Amino acid sequence: MELNKQMQAWGESRSVIRDLFEYGLQRKAEIGADKVFDFSLGNPSVPAPPIVAETIAKLQEGDPVALHGYTSAAGDMQVRHKIAYYLNKNYGLTVGAQHLYMTCGAAASLTISLKALCLPGDEVVVCAPFFPEYRVFVEAAGAKLVQVQPDAATLYPDAEAFAAAITAKTKAVIINSPNNPSGVVYPEWVIKGIAGVLTEKQAEYGHDIVLISDEPYRELVYGNVEVPYILNYYDNSIVCYSFSKSLSLPGERIGFILVGDKMSEGAKVYAAICGAARALGYVCAPSLFQRVVAEALGQTADVSIYRYNRDLLLDALTEYGFSCVQPDGAFYLFMRTPEPDAAAFCERAKKHELLLVPCDGFGTPGFVRISYCVSTKQIENSLPAFKALAAEYK
Amino acid sequence: MELNKQMQAWGESRSVIRDLFEYGLQRKAEIGADKVFDFSLGNPSVPAPPIVAETIAKLQEGDPVALHGYTSAAGDMQVRHKIAYYLNKNYGLTVGAQHLYMTCGAAASLTISLKALCLPGDEVVVCAPFFPEYRVFVEAAGAKLVQVQPDAATLYPDAEAFAAAITAKTKAVIINSPNNPSGVVYPEWVIKGIAGVLTEKQAEYGHDIVLISDEPYRELVYGNVEVPYILNYYDNSIVCYSFSKSLSLPGERIGFILVGDKMSEGAKVYAAICGAARALGYVCAPSLFQRVVAEALGQTADVSIYRYNRDLLLDALTEYGFSCVQPDGAFYLFMRTPEPDAAAFCERAKKHELLLVPCDGFGTPGFVRISYCVSTKQIENSLPAFKALAAEYK
Repeated sequence: MELNKQMQAWGESRSVIRDLFEYGLQRKAEIGADKVFDFSLGNPSVPAPPIVAETIAKLQEGDPVALHGYTSAAGDMQVRHKIAYYLNKNYGLTVGAQHLYMTCGAAASLTISLKALCLPGDEVVVCAPFFPEYRVFVEAAGAKLVQVQPDAATLYPDAEAFAAAITAKTKAVIINSPNNPSGVVYPEWVIKGIAGVLTEKQAEYGHDIVLISDEPYRELVYGNVEVPYILNYYDNSIVCYSFSKSLSLPGERIGFILVGDKMSEGAKVYAAICGAARALGYVCAPSLFQRVVAEALGQTADVSIYRYNRDLLLDALTEYGFSCVQPDGAFYLFMRTPEPDAAAFCERAKKHELLLVPCDGFGTPGFVRISYCVSTKQIENSLPAFKALAAEYK
Repeated sequence: MELNKQMQAWGESRSVIRDLFEYGLQRKAEIGADKVFDFSLGNPSVPAPPIVAETIAKLQEGDPVALHGYTSAAGDMQVRHKIAYYLNKNYGLTVGAQHLYMTCGAAASLTISLKALCLPGDEVVVCAPFFPEYRVFVEAAGAKLVQVQPDAATLYPDAEAFAAAITAKTKAVIINSPNNPSGVVYPEWVIKGIAGVLTEKQAEYGHDIVLISDEPYRELVYGNVEVPYILNYYDNSIVCYSFSKSLSLPGERIGFILVGDKMSEGAKVYAAICGAARALGYVCAPSLFQRVVAEALGQTADVSIYRYNRDLLLDALTEYGFSCVQPDGAFYLFMRTPEPDAAAFCERAKKHELLLVPCDGFGTPGFVRISYCVSTKQIENSLPAFKALAAEYK
């Protein structure tokens, strides 16, 4: 059978994260679930807020034909109006339902947007550390992924490296703040800097460059941290949003694409997004959960639990001598490995039943990602293992 | 903005069906909903069976983190086991969970399968009348759509034309029985004939040809009509299934791909499907509805209502002098237009407030599709309009 070899390769090369997770399941079966400390997956551990179950129950009282029927391909009009209203009110935007396209989550938002925008030969710039699936999404759209290394101290994109990465071939830039895997949130001055460089480069090359903000972690921030809304800083902006993490609904696949209302030839971009969604087989976003998220706007799962987990883990690991980035958002701790080879460090961690993700695939060798979207008990129980691991490097 | 022009074109060229539907909404606002007879959409009009709401309510009692969390990309293992068990029991198959890939409905099943299989230059054969989106799906996968005309009397693929359409470039054949738009169900001898031709052609050209069965209407058959299961007739088979129509859940986007267990290099094909799903942005099928359909296997919405509608409409239209194909399945009546130009006929029908779909885009000029997944009352009320329309051609 002569198949599409690229698809076969992507199907056979399972992600490091998934592999670790599967190893964890097996190991738990061998020695007991409470003896294995799995920090691999970014699967929310806090239940969805009560509004989710309440809305599902309430919707069941209505007409099932309307509830479970097709919505318009772009999403139910009332749902899109509600989201636009919410965004305008909270972020000072001026968008309407016609700028929103409901999707099956952030991955779909990204694949659809990239397919709409990219032509063969185009380049898409991503800022390390970055979610490894970006590579698959960018290459599936026929474009080339170009990565920018971060400033070592802040983990924001290095300003000089960022400017140098934008070439005449750059079609789009993807940013992800709060960031997976580092938990870093880009402050306003960083967003302004990115917008400034892109505005200059657009003028220099005489064509548009789209800024795509992948933001499933927007609401997962701790303390008084602001997540700037990119439409307020740059006109050619697309936001790829997901309710997966904020509402703890990752399996339900619900999110949206927002095409900036001041986007150059925005109606054409929106049309291309409609066409790309059609070509990729997305008929509409799941109809029940379109209605659920419209009722839950502004609400989140209990994020204070993640904050507690973060503080517990960060304080302990720092005390043991590990060097971590202070995460302001998301639910990942990004830790420098005490030996240069992160994979070797993770193998050593495994001997202590600690499952950590080496970050070479995120574009940042020498780091691991520790997902703290787990039970607080797991973190408490794992601390002696982390301490013993640290001792090996003393 | 230099976009992907093909995506823009697919986004801007709305389907004839959607256009009619939008016209209907507008017209209803003008003259009253009960005065417009919209037969355009294939949106189930019968509520989901009670098991759907019951299962949703029951699942709400369990752990929301598990319920709404990510499943494995291929789908929850227990769900896949249940579906495999059901298929084996009902159709005498020997498949397992490892042959099933849960998807966001039939459109996703098709785009994923085609992306996994196709290389540039490949041809995909479809049998007219066919669902117009096949063209988008096939071309999006980089292949060329080749259409086979039906036998005029039966609407089964014409045997000679079918054999002639299979060339050295043929990667796959898509069949759709019960058929949209004709309601025709291919009997066993037709499936055997297709399998026979493909087996011969595989030998002749020395490469595999995949038979893809798109079957969202499998359970919507009237009387003692059997829908043969293609895995029992041809090894290189893929089934693209959806629960949209059988359970009246079209908006929820839930279905599966079944890769034949005797498929040549089946593990590679399955891997390519996993890779294609990843590349298209499908993380997993909606998790709540994976569990719902697993509990509802073998159940359907009340199909007897569609049968009643069919008989009512078929008898009346025949009496008025129209020539219809007797539909054994699905919820469409396929009617020959009394003038050769189906679009002109549909414009004339509009004057009687009848919204019918011209079938040129389905590869069959001179026919219209009449969706009878509407209220029985709408059909009853529409009959004088059909009668008046018929009178114009006498």
